[in-house]
Amino acid sequence: MNSKKKMAAIQDYYPDDFAHCYGCGRLNENGMKLRTFWHEDESSTVTWYEPRDNQIAIPGFVYGGLLASFVDCHGTGSAALMKHKMNGFMPDDGEDAPRFVTASLHLDYLKPTPHGETLKAIGSVEEIHPKKFKVTVTVYAGTLHVVNGEVVAVQAPSSFDPTQTKS
Amino acid sequence: MNSKKKMAAIQDYYPDDFAHCYGCGRLNENGMKLRTFWHEDESSTVTWYEPRDNQIAIPGFVYGGLLASFVDCHGTGSAALMKHKMNGFMPDDGEDAPRFVTASLHLDYLKPTPHGETLKAIGSVEEIHPKKFKVTVTVYAGTLHVVNGEVVAVQAPSSFDPTQTKS
Repeated sequence: MNSKKKMAAIQDYYPDDFAHCYGCGRLNENGMKLRTFWHEDESSTVTWYEPRDNQIAIPGFVYGGLLASFVDCHGTGSAALMKHKMNGFMPDDGEDAPRFVTASLHLDYLKPTPHGETLKAIGSVEEIHPKKFKVTVTVYAGTLHVVNGEVVAVQAPSSFDPTQTKS
Repeated sequence: MNSKKKMAAIQDYYPDDFAHCYGCGRLNENGMKLRTFWHEDESSTVTWYEPRDNQIAIPGFVYGGLLASFVDCHGTGSAALMKHKMNGFMPDDGEDAPRFVTASLHLDYLKPTPHGETLKAIGSVEEIHPKKFKVTVTVYAGTLHVVNGEVVAVQAPSSFDPTQTKS
């Protein structure tokens, strides 16, 4: 994989109407702007984040809800990356990325997460149905393994009308 | 229960060093300032929240990570309320509330959550160990049932040093 492809995130290619998410929307001005990439040999995915000063549970430690947001968007992003690949595309091929929504989210908090370290989520994606993917997520703060997560993400139609969606 | 007691939230009585949480800390200036109350007959708990304009997944619908934060802090707040009650106290008795941290968090997103409605979380608390509580959470947007959640919350010692905590 060349470095250009490696640095293309799937969220960069979400259709505009799907790019307003507080967690990962490139068009959400004050959002977290999470970006999910293929990791190493494309058998796993990666997202990084630097928590803001106020995203704490107690002073010095990252807020659990922020970690949930991080896992959530990493999960839908990873599912979108995988589905895009199965459709024959890499993120920067110029095609709109597929759209995924979260059906379920689970986190086990293994230990307090120190603030001031870069967070890294590594995802492993498994197809459990043609339109449903399970993403197993491991979160690190620096080198410290702090959270295990799991996201079940469901593909939404390209003409996504959420008032009609039922996972 | 008189109305004064009813309007006292457990987070109002968290010790100062535990009151900086982005989700529910009264001292986190730009945080969500979630507040958890006894609901009706004290057999359940309630937290409300009005999502901000940018806390969206797509325009018109609430961000799943925000819902996770909402469930997370409602869970720890509900566990603290219950433990405080078991210790013989109501929130406004002037005693510091017990401290809880999240061991695990689970959400099932039943349908898209419309933005512009007040979110309401109702919690049911079960003691599963003297220092561990399971909180089952039902989330509504207005009258629409949108999320089922579950939080396992673990009591931290009053001299809480998170570097030594392992759930």
